[in-house]
Amino acid sequence: MCDVLVFDRLISHELVDAAPPGAIRIGRDQLEQVAIDSLLVRLGQRDLEVVRLKGGDPFVFGRGGEEALALAAAGVPFEVVPGVSSLSAVPASAGIPITHRGVSSQVTVISGHDPGNLDFGALAGAPGTLVIFMGLGSLEVVAESLVAHGKAPDTPAAVIASGTLCEQRVVVAPLEQIAVTAALLDPPALVVIGDVVALAGTLAADELLRAAAA
Amino acid sequence: MCDVLVFDRLISHELVDAAPPGAIRIGRDQLEQVAIDSLLVRLGQRDLEVVRLKGGDPFVFGRGGEEALALAAAGVPFEVVPGVSSLSAVPASAGIPITHRGVSSQVTVISGHDPGNLDFGALAGAPGTLVIFMGLGSLEVVAESLVAHGKAPDTPAAVIASGTLCEQRVVVAPLEQIAVTAALLDPPALVVIGDVVALAGTLAADELLRAAAA
Repeated sequence: MCDVLVFDRLISHELVDAAPPGAIRIGRDQLEQVAIDSLLVRLGQRDLEVVRLKGGDPFVFGRGGEEALALAAAGVPFEVVPGVSSLSAVPASAGIPITHRGVSSQVTVISGHDPGNLDFGALAGAPGTLVIFMGLGSLEVVAESLVAHGKAPDTPAAVIASGTLCEQRVVVAPLEQIAVTAALLDPPALVVIGDVVALAGTLAADELLRAAAA
Repeated sequence: MCDVLVFDRLISHELVDAAPPGAIRIGRDQLEQVAIDSLLVRLGQRDLEVVRLKGGDPFVFGRGGEEALALAAAGVPFEVVPGVSSLSAVPASAGIPITHRGVSSQVTVISGHDPGNLDFGALAGAPGTLVIFMGLGSLEVVAESLVAHGKAPDTPAAVIASGTLCEQRVVVAPLEQIAVTAALLDPPALVVIGDVVALAGTLAADELLRAAAA
């Protein structure tokens, strides 16, 4: 079932520990993407059963497509197992539904990794919810650019660091203040901008009630 | 752990069967949303442990936020468990990664339920991948409107009906022909528009290879 486990840096150790005792475990954090692609191909060509364990969903900013294409090009059979993406799970853990009837029926998902490539005019005008992966490093320039292109400065915004983990930290502030407010947070972090963030006060508070009762 | 199970129409019967033998099972397909909200509140107020089982993710076009707000307003404690959303799982099951480096680094998610409310000018100009929930009924008007507003008529498009299930059907065609090509499909269906759809030929074919080898 699993001769080799190749896992990402942010994978819970409980999952890594769940591999069979004899399985070879390879952490990928020292490897470039091209080296991972090559590793998976070589392992597969030796008829080893390989589990490539990623955080979140492999096809949502997970580079799963690149690894799958490498396998397909080499004729190595594979199966893609979808996962729970941080796209919705991380906001949910902060009490934020990314869609909500009457509040947001559109979600735009981007990466904050390379903000110079973003069309801030279009993003500022898009209705609904904006979710930014890897958005902490560029949060100041992204928030300022959105406001400069017409996004309301008081649009509710949230940064959720280490979402769904015990060490989760959530910061909520108006868009124009979110970068300063989140300055002390560390990655990994997801940024959510839009009126759905205002629901966090009610929904997260009730989840806390539950936690207190448990 | 589960006194009452309230489940959606599209839930696999295997999951419903997994409820404890003594649990009360309530299918929600005859109930309006406001009746579900009220049912959950009343059950919760009687200190019953209720599992509200939804398909996909409750906070991605799932109305989970509405049910959670009703519970919060009534002081009923709850916990939200994120799920695997059809947003990425259904395209993945057709070999389509919704993001792919060099092809798409932005995803726009909308509902096709009420196309009159959509800003087709902005949607036609948005880079990356467009995913449409409940998009089969309005596919013709949506596709035509996107093309009329400047989206390239040969943009690759896919409709995935009954995604991830045994009866899954996938249709791929240029945007200008997708509505005709998908005319015989039945809901539930997810629509994906963008260059990532072109990867389906390679990735889905290889998954078929795997299935043949199994």
